Amino acid sequence: MINKTFKRAIACIIAGIFLLTFMFTNDFTSVKSNASGSQKETQAVSLKAPKYVFMFIGDGMSFPQIQAASDYLGAISQDKSSKVLTGNKYLDFTKFPVAGSAVTYDSTSFCPDSASTATSLSTGHKTYSGTINMDETMTISYETISEKLKKQLGYKIGIISTVNLNHATPAAYYAHQASRNNYYAIGLEMIHSGFDYFAGGALINPDGDKKDTPQTNLYKLAKDSGYKVLTAQKDAEALTAADGKSIVIGETLADSNSLSYSNDTKTGEWALKDYVKKGIDVLYNKKGFFMMVEGGKIDWACHANDAGSTISDTLALDDAVKEAINFYKKYPSETLIIVTGDHETGGLTIGYAGTEYSTFLDNLSNQKLSYAKFDSAYVKKYKENKTSFTDVLTDIKKNFGLITDTDPSSAAYPNLVLTPYEYNKLKAAYDMTITGKAAKSQEEYLLYGSYEPLTVTITHILNNKSGIAFTSYSHTGLPVGVFAQGQGADLFGGYYDNTQIYFNLASLLKVK
Amino acid sequence: MINKTFKRAIACIIAGIFLLTFMFTNDFTSVKSNASGSQKETQAVSLKAPKYVFMFIGDGMSFPQIQAASDYLGAISQDKSSKVLTGNKYLDFTKFPVAGSAVTYDSTSFCPDSASTATSLSTGHKTYSGTINMDETMTISYETISEKLKKQLGYKIGIISTVNLNHATPAAYYAHQASRNNYYAIGLEMIHSGFDYFAGGALINPDGDKKDTPQTNLYKLAKDSGYKVLTAQKDAEALTAADGKSIVIGETLADSNSLSYSNDTKTGEWALKDYVKKGIDVLYNKKGFFMMVEGGKIDWACHANDAGSTISDTLALDDAVKEAINFYKKYPSETLIIVTGDHETGGLTIGYAGTEYSTFLDNLSNQKLSYAKFDSAYVKKYKENKTSFTDVLTDIKKNFGLITDTDPSSAAYPNLVLTPYEYNKLKAAYDMTITGKAAKSQEEYLLYGSYEPLTVTITHILNNKSGIAFTSYSHTGLPVGVFAQGQGADLFGGYYDNTQIYFNLASLLKVK
Repeated sequence: MINKTFKRAIACIIAGIFLLTFMFTNDFTSVKSNASGSQKETQAVSLKAPKYVFMFIGDGMSFPQIQAASDYLGAISQDKSSKVLTGNKYLDFTKFPVAGSAVTYDSTSFCPDSASTATSLSTGHKTYSGTINMDETMTISYETISEKLKKQLGYKIGIISTVNLNHATPAAYYAHQASRNNYYAIGLEMIHSGFDYFAGGALINPDGDKKDTPQTNLYKLAKDSGYKVLTAQKDAEALTAADGKSIVIGETLADSNSLSYSNDTKTGEWALKDYVKKGIDVLYNKKGFFMMVEGGKIDWACHANDAGSTISDTLALDDAVKEAINFYKKYPSETLIIVTGDHETGGLTIGYAGTEYSTFLDNLSNQKLSYAKFDSAYVKKYKENKTSFTDVLTDIKKNFGLITDTDPSSAAYPNLVLTPYEYNKLKAAYDMTITGKAAKSQEEYLLYGSYEPLTVTITHILNNKSGIAFTSYSHTGLPVGVFAQGQGADLFGGYYDNTQIYFNLASLLKVK
Repeated sequence: MINKTFKRAIACIIAGIFLLTFMFTNDFTSVKSNASGSQKETQAVSLKAPKYVFMFIGDGMSFPQIQAASDYLGAISQDKSSKVLTGNKYLDFTKFPVAGSAVTYDSTSFCPDSASTATSLSTGHKTYSGTINMDETMTISYETISEKLKKQLGYKIGIISTVNLNHATPAAYYAHQASRNNYYAIGLEMIHSGFDYFAGGALINPDGDKKDTPQTNLYKLAKDSGYKVLTAQKDAEALTAADGKSIVIGETLADSNSLSYSNDTKTGEWALKDYVKKGIDVLYNKKGFFMMVEGGKIDWACHANDAGSTISDTLALDDAVKEAINFYKKYPSETLIIVTGDHETGGLTIGYAGTEYSTFLDNLSNQKLSYAKFDSAYVKKYKENKTSFTDVLTDIKKNFGLITDTDPSSAAYPNLVLTPYEYNKLKAAYDMTITGKAAKSQEEYLLYGSYEPLTVTITHILNNKSGIAFTSYSHTGLPVGVFAQGQGADLFGGYYDNTQIYFNLASLLKVK
């Protein structure tokens, strides 16, 4: 017993000396866990500021989206000959040492908006839905973490998004507008920010928000302000830090001029990870950088209740985080990676009344394209040509795997066979789409939202047959996960208000 | 600059000396964050074991249930004259410094069962749905954390649940059965456990699982084994540690002989917190205790898609946790409190297609009783008396607040007025209930599950009008929150498999 205590004492002395030595060669790093939701003070004061900060935001991405993607990877790699489920495959960012939760309500609702929630993340303030970095009286503008880092510390700033670069979430890192719909004014603020690297979908309303009173083209203004504006992928590939400030617009643009859904990308087409990798190349410098990366179409897919595209875009975000992880491995004591969401979208659940305790997530591997691509590549023609339901069913089989009970492969794929109830729902939706009738009644709105009845019914049925369901076409009030790795990561543990993410960052980075 | 460095050095030396002194008077507590989902090794080896461990399990309680309760508290205290939403009120356990997430799949499904998930929590093993502390071949029994603590460290053990004491979750802390339905055998194991304090709902099948072959009454066997069996609340109130081993059954029993839903309790009737408070009284001793407390009817309410009862029972669990927090304040360095769930139930979402970005959570304050109490106190009579729909609507107004557009208060409470669509749904459900027709078609099952059509339609409509929805009558695959405070709490941060909760506890408590 005495021997054991002695050994312990010696171990303690060695540890103590080590600690003292460590203290004289480094800043004294004392991190306490972040306590309560109401708390706005952080304990990062004595921590060394990370020089390289990655802020990944999965728009509409909360625990259901993350776990669904993780379970899907598990389902498609399950050994079918074994009765024992081997479970999920963890996304890389969920392996981070810290995984807290952030509460997302805004000044309008428990089901908040992307503009207001991004305002909370970038400035530590709540505001009304639809507002970007202004208070509820629309008179006070809030300076963002990225503006402060540029101004006070000389960090280079990168803003990357799969959606339009003047959409709410990217805008919340450089703009200050009463309405997220002031796209042209947001574009002007983007140019005036002087930030170093913008990459993603095309600008909305580059010639002004009013068609009858066009304004000077934003891209022209950007060039005049010294930005290199690139729209060809080969030019983006050739971009280096020596080129100075840049705006990189995806060569292939999809719905609403955003980047393609991950399940629609062509071979060789840049994915989100490629924009991040290029961002690291052009932003890296001795002073530091801050990079905001939005997986913006997770939200869009959830609005449309398209589980397949939700999962593939969540996996694409994880792939982009991998680039940051590779960077972190090179500069572990100087890098901080945060991965979070702004809110949940769609009320996604892994489980559905019709499938009870079962899921058939590998059904989703039959989905070959996004709802949006199906709309543009197929449904548009159906409406023009009044395509027969039989022909449409052939396309549905090809693109989503759903089959009728008379299909030769129905015995081999029982989980993909339409029940009479599902068949009738699909036929009713087809009729709505072909006749161009808008959803009007309460029941029709619940069934279709503002989406193409045929397409949203296809994804609903495929989701449900896979054991997935949605409850809404809007955002919901679920907290989001906050995953962190690197210098200061421990600050992001706990269950707290989303504004705390800003306060932790500002305290850690020592900006005012 | 030199002055600043010198001051820092002095501060470091003082801190170093303090640390060395601290090390010689305490065990060296070095906690690293818990890294990845695949990891099964813990870093608790050098931590001092907590003597008093509280394990709260909200059955079916994940982030949606917690946040809905939190948002509901915010909604009912919102200043109606202000346009600015003041947000949620944090439950006490969500203010804990540590809030991780645990993945819940079992060997059968991503939508797992309570028996298997509680097996993961109590033994660190995955197994099939429906199985309690046995492997997938049903040949190996797993010893539980509570059994180990009793045997190896002499801790006193308490098992408390709002549902039956031989139901899956409490059983998983003392029993080992291929099926959770072996209620009598589970009851026998409960008695043989020798655990010190059982409290909650009555035993299922106390006279054996087969009605035609009755077995010796479990309560008699318990008494024969030295248990004090109490069924009157006044006797429970008088119980002390000097009485020895005890089984306390609620005096007022509700559906399936469980304790009452929180919103059905009569004045003076013991709530979950009272059983916990008594548990602390009788279990406290110098060696230590382990107390498992289940809020079991959160799950039952979610199965039935009853949001009002889900929220009130979640708040009742938080009230029970407050008792543990009070205890922790007396013995902070010796106490560990964990609050988690076993899985999510119902696919609850804060948000619904019909209410889009709005919620009206204060609508739920009109719900005066649980779905189960409405079934037993009202619907039973409706079926016997063929009560008219008009009379039923009067009861619905009184108990749930829902009104028709002809109601005099309809202008004052627009969010509670049934739309034609909702009215028709309610009438169809009433017809099903009155005629006693069982839900048979796919559509009917989706609408009613195995519940009383009238009752489940009432809660569905009230939920939806409040901005709440469910997608399932079963469990879902959402991860659960893991909230921890006290000695060793830091081990429970991160995003990991639910078995890790056991491994962390076993490592921390140094049991094998």
